[in-house]
Amino acid sequence: MSTTTGELLSTAMQAYLDDATARLQEEFADDFSPEDVKALVDDSVERLHGHAITVEWVPLLAERFTRNRLRAARRLGHDDPSQPPSVLFACVHNSGRSQMAAAMMRHLAGDQVVVFSGGSNPSHELNPAAVAAMAEVGIDMSRERPHPWTDEIIQASDVVITMGCGDECPVFPGREYRDWGLDDPKDQPIEKVREIRDEIEARVHRLMAEFGAQPRT
Amino acid sequence: MSTTTGELLSTAMQAYLDDATARLQEEFADDFSPEDVKALVDDSVERLHGHAITVEWVPLLAERFTRNRLRAARRLGHDDPSQPPSVLFACVHNSGRSQMAAAMMRHLAGDQVVVFSGGSNPSHELNPAAVAAMAEVGIDMSRERPHPWTDEIIQASDVVITMGCGDECPVFPGREYRDWGLDDPKDQPIEKVREIRDEIEARVHRLMAEFGAQPRT
Repeated sequence: MSTTTGELLSTAMQAYLDDATARLQEEFADDFSPEDVKALVDDSVERLHGHAITVEWVPLLAERFTRNRLRAARRLGHDDPSQPPSVLFACVHNSGRSQMAAAMMRHLAGDQVVVFSGGSNPSHELNPAAVAAMAEVGIDMSRERPHPWTDEIIQASDVVITMGCGDECPVFPGREYRDWGLDDPKDQPIEKVREIRDEIEARVHRLMAEFGAQPRT
Repeated sequence: MSTTTGELLSTAMQAYLDDATARLQEEFADDFSPEDVKALVDDSVERLHGHAITVEWVPLLAERFTRNRLRAARRLGHDDPSQPPSVLFACVHNSGRSQMAAAMMRHLAGDQVVVFSGGSNPSHELNPAAVAAMAEVGIDMSRERPHPWTDEIIQASDVVITMGCGDECPVFPGREYRDWGLDDPKDQPIEKVREIRDEIEARVHRLMAEFGAQPRT
């Protein structure tokens, strides 16, 4: 355990983090050493502390964030043209549009497309109206939480879709960037959020067609 | 989520519990429905609240406790004489002797013996001297926590080994009970705890021989 982690987390939270680390070490045992996984978990914890996230959420978010980073790093390590295409949906808060787009893509494409999402300044929780609008079409986002992205996630993404993050949007040489001009569902009535959801669905379908992926439903 | 659970856990702790429930549902999908797993998790949470465990530990302990209960229930559901033998190590606090015996048996027997442990009145944490004495012989108990037992765990145990729990020891018709007359390591110097550890090791070896299990190390 790094000194920083140990100082900031309670004994209980450290136990959650230790369990999460053990899970990730087992899950990625074919590609990364236990020490490398542990180091990445510690790095994720430090980054999350920088985002003013309540301490009791840190182990849960660190596990999810580190899992995404390990998936990205594994992808970068395998120069395999037969890998499925990958996309990062990026916005500022990772609480509405980018989460909806990521959930829609996972729902429609399954393992045909590798999906990442993240925010430049992740908020504390998802927009409840976004969760509700997705639930209406049978997509459960209730267990998602906003999280940041990292350089390895951008590098591992064939296409980066930005949504109103302006100057805070990630730029990395060689990546393909697109901006989806979607309205922000924040503080909008549910009718408006449904429109945004349907617009996202149409755009996800078009992106899947480009990728040669077939909708599962 | 049950009303009781929802009232007692914070949003973050509920998210940990939801993740744990999803893991258990996946792990036991061959034997139990998602609803049955969820119901057992909720029941475990209620039982743990009865043991005055700090709320932030509840999801972690509920996952481990429920996993043991599901392993026990699965075992009871399969009337298969080729199953490995099973043993429950039971004491009052599940913080010293019963944890050492369980860890020693897991270390020496691996998957040749199914191991449970529990306390009639589990304490908040393990005895640090017990953890230290086991670490000296290469056995890591640092991530263990005291937990209770349940009727299905007793029923799923071929042998129940009690350690000074007196009238609080479990009794269930048809089980084989033995009492190991071990000194309590509580408030003992490390030299004494080492003696208890070595006595436990000798007894575990004898029990393994009865079971026809070969030491792995």
